[in-house]
Amino acid sequence: MHIEILNTGTELLLGNTLNTHGSWFGRQLFNMGLRVARQSTVPDGEAIREAFEEMVLRSDALLITGGLGPTSDDLTREIVAESLGLELHQDEQALRTLESFFSIRGKPMVAANLKQVLVPTGADVLPNPNGTAPGLYLPPRINRLSNCAIFLLPGPPRELYPMFHNEVAPRLRSLSGCSDVASVCELKFTGIGESDFHHGIDDELAALAGLEYGYCARMGEVDLRLIGNDQVISTARDLVLEKFSEFLISDDGTSLEATVTRLLREKGKKLATAESCTGGLIANRLTNVPGASEVFTHGWVTYANEAKMDQLHVAKNLLEMHGAVSEEVARAMAEGALQESAADCALSVTGIAGPDGGTEEKPVGTAWLGLAVRGKKTQTVRVFHPRNRKDFKQAVSQSALNLVRLEIRG
Amino acid sequence: MHIEILNTGTELLLGNTLNTHGSWFGRQLFNMGLRVARQSTVPDGEAIREAFEEMVLRSDALLITGGLGPTSDDLTREIVAESLGLELHQDEQALRTLESFFSIRGKPMVAANLKQVLVPTGADVLPNPNGTAPGLYLPPRINRLSNCAIFLLPGPPRELYPMFHNEVAPRLRSLSGCSDVASVCELKFTGIGESDFHHGIDDELAALAGLEYGYCARMGEVDLRLIGNDQVISTARDLVLEKFSEFLISDDGTSLEATVTRLLREKGKKLATAESCTGGLIANRLTNVPGASEVFTHGWVTYANEAKMDQLHVAKNLLEMHGAVSEEVARAMAEGALQESAADCALSVTGIAGPDGGTEEKPVGTAWLGLAVRGKKTQTVRVFHPRNRKDFKQAVSQSALNLVRLEIRG
Repeated sequence: MHIEILNTGTELLLGNTLNTHGSWFGRQLFNMGLRVARQSTVPDGEAIREAFEEMVLRSDALLITGGLGPTSDDLTREIVAESLGLELHQDEQALRTLESFFSIRGKPMVAANLKQVLVPTGADVLPNPNGTAPGLYLPPRINRLSNCAIFLLPGPPRELYPMFHNEVAPRLRSLSGCSDVASVCELKFTGIGESDFHHGIDDELAALAGLEYGYCARMGEVDLRLIGNDQVISTARDLVLEKFSEFLISDDGTSLEATVTRLLREKGKKLATAESCTGGLIANRLTNVPGASEVFTHGWVTYANEAKMDQLHVAKNLLEMHGAVSEEVARAMAEGALQESAADCALSVTGIAGPDGGTEEKPVGTAWLGLAVRGKKTQTVRVFHPRNRKDFKQAVSQSALNLVRLEIRG
Repeated sequence: MHIEILNTGTELLLGNTLNTHGSWFGRQLFNMGLRVARQSTVPDGEAIREAFEEMVLRSDALLITGGLGPTSDDLTREIVAESLGLELHQDEQALRTLESFFSIRGKPMVAANLKQVLVPTGADVLPNPNGTAPGLYLPPRINRLSNCAIFLLPGPPRELYPMFHNEVAPRLRSLSGCSDVASVCELKFTGIGESDFHHGIDDELAALAGLEYGYCARMGEVDLRLIGNDQVISTARDLVLEKFSEFLISDDGTSLEATVTRLLREKGKKLATAESCTGGLIANRLTNVPGASEVFTHGWVTYANEAKMDQLHVAKNLLEMHGAVSEEVARAMAEGALQESAADCALSVTGIAGPDGGTEEKPVGTAWLGLAVRGKKTQTVRVFHPRNRKDFKQAVSQSALNLVRLEIRG
């Protein structure tokens, strides 16, 4: 089944807004055994018509997002109806729903909202309990251009996501019949580069018939994706893990922070964090995981030297002698955080994010990590990630969380 | 000038990886007075050929990312050369650069890397100091299908971004000649919804000839984009700010955290943070801004009640009487953070991120914010953002940073 996605919105092409829909649709469809054949983004207005008329000829199903709102740049509904030669009429049920949407919120409905309940003849209205724009489904029988099924969907994720699950997915399942569902296995690795896989395992994977695979390198992480039937995936997985198991974060797409959280929970351990250059990113990543409160209790963002001294008891002479970015200070921060919290281990990070503050001896990108564990000698590690400020923080947080993973895993 | 972007990579369509290139290119080209007419994403392999052969006919310039690596799924170079009937030959200069890339890093070059220095006859090699894959520029004169200029570029941002600025932008400038550069003005607002703009200002903006405008609603933020000549933008901007200036974050696309950081610096004030439910996100956002250390010194992530008591001196009886998510605890956290730090003001957040922990009285999505300022009565605000965990954190951090913005702005 050839499925295409069309995202409309000038803001998506001016660089103001990141398009997250392409990736989100990809995952949903993949989980249904379907694939996105192509995703396109066009600005609001007439560009929609050109793209739509090409895509509708190539596709069995076409999912269009955006341009269903009340404002003057919202034209998707009108352009699609015109291309297909369909009249628009006001849908009474949709109108009542819209009126009640406003009355529940005690807000007045304005005339511009009325265009949101215009429906092409023969189309299904897809209810939108989370917003004012209902979606539309145009089945193949009303499509005079091709046999393509067309979905018009709202742009905001909180409206789109439930509508996809409730209205779009069941229709796609019925349109696609029983497709052959390939399995997928996502292995996430850290502490190793893409080229290490290439040298170490690429030839063996390439020799496995029926296996599709690919690498994706991120900041401090390499993901290896295996696609095929269960047997070939299992064979490929074994080949890979035989060589690289020590670098494995997860084999089900679980993030490093969720893996660390799970390991801590399984071992009944609690972690504290003492961050300088990562500025709260490590705590933020950990607390993105539901249930983080079971394993994470205390975090410090000791950005200034005074904070390191006052809050974590880092000795002034350590800071003066070695500087804030040093093995000694990383160790003292981790040990101070362990002492102040009731945690079982404490992770510290101190480094130079830049753009300013680098020296020849300690250039921008340098960081020291510390990991203090009750009853053990504190570990320290120097890392070097010469990147822009945000990428540096991400890469350092990755190295730091991996230190915890390796320690807790034992 | 009709410019299209083609992003290649199966991972971009399986939902594993967010495609940030479309948005990034949009901004770069816009700043040069150019626009992206369409952005498309296709999986690795033969789908590239179909998309390429359509796009090359429509476009004056085509920018393709990805598929230049050493592995078997990297086929962009081969497919484009074949479509254009161009031979590939090994480029000696590129080979020497690649050999030196590996020798500097003390790593062996493998045979698979050799395909990265294959160059279509007549193409320019675009040096890549940050990776192994050089880019390629195929000028219109070697394009037998159309008059389109073609750029093949590496996927990883740290390789792509400098190559774009050093190699692609100058060539695009020369290809496009002196285009008419429209100005853009991005107004960011918070504490107000898209529909408020619609009711309040849409008709007046629509009446301005030569103005293109659009809204974009994010989590806790609405961006209004004005495009046109300087005069119409100035008129539109005045109309909007006459009604909505109190909600304005910035008029140049600056983020809320950067605006708060700037305001603090201008007033010579320092801020401390005491976070529970946002788990370090506020500190993380502040420290994403270069120079944050001038205004941000101390942050706490007091996720557990013990941390609130030990670190911020929140009284046990407050926690027992009112619960951790309460006005009283938010106030005590902010005042404790002010006392512990040498800051001029301290921001606190305590709430229920979910998915668990909600009650009828305090459902998931509830948060209390506190802002303590030296010599003033501590402010408290209740907010309600019933969203998923990450969106909740983002929306609450937005409300909290806005509280600081309003206070510091005075």
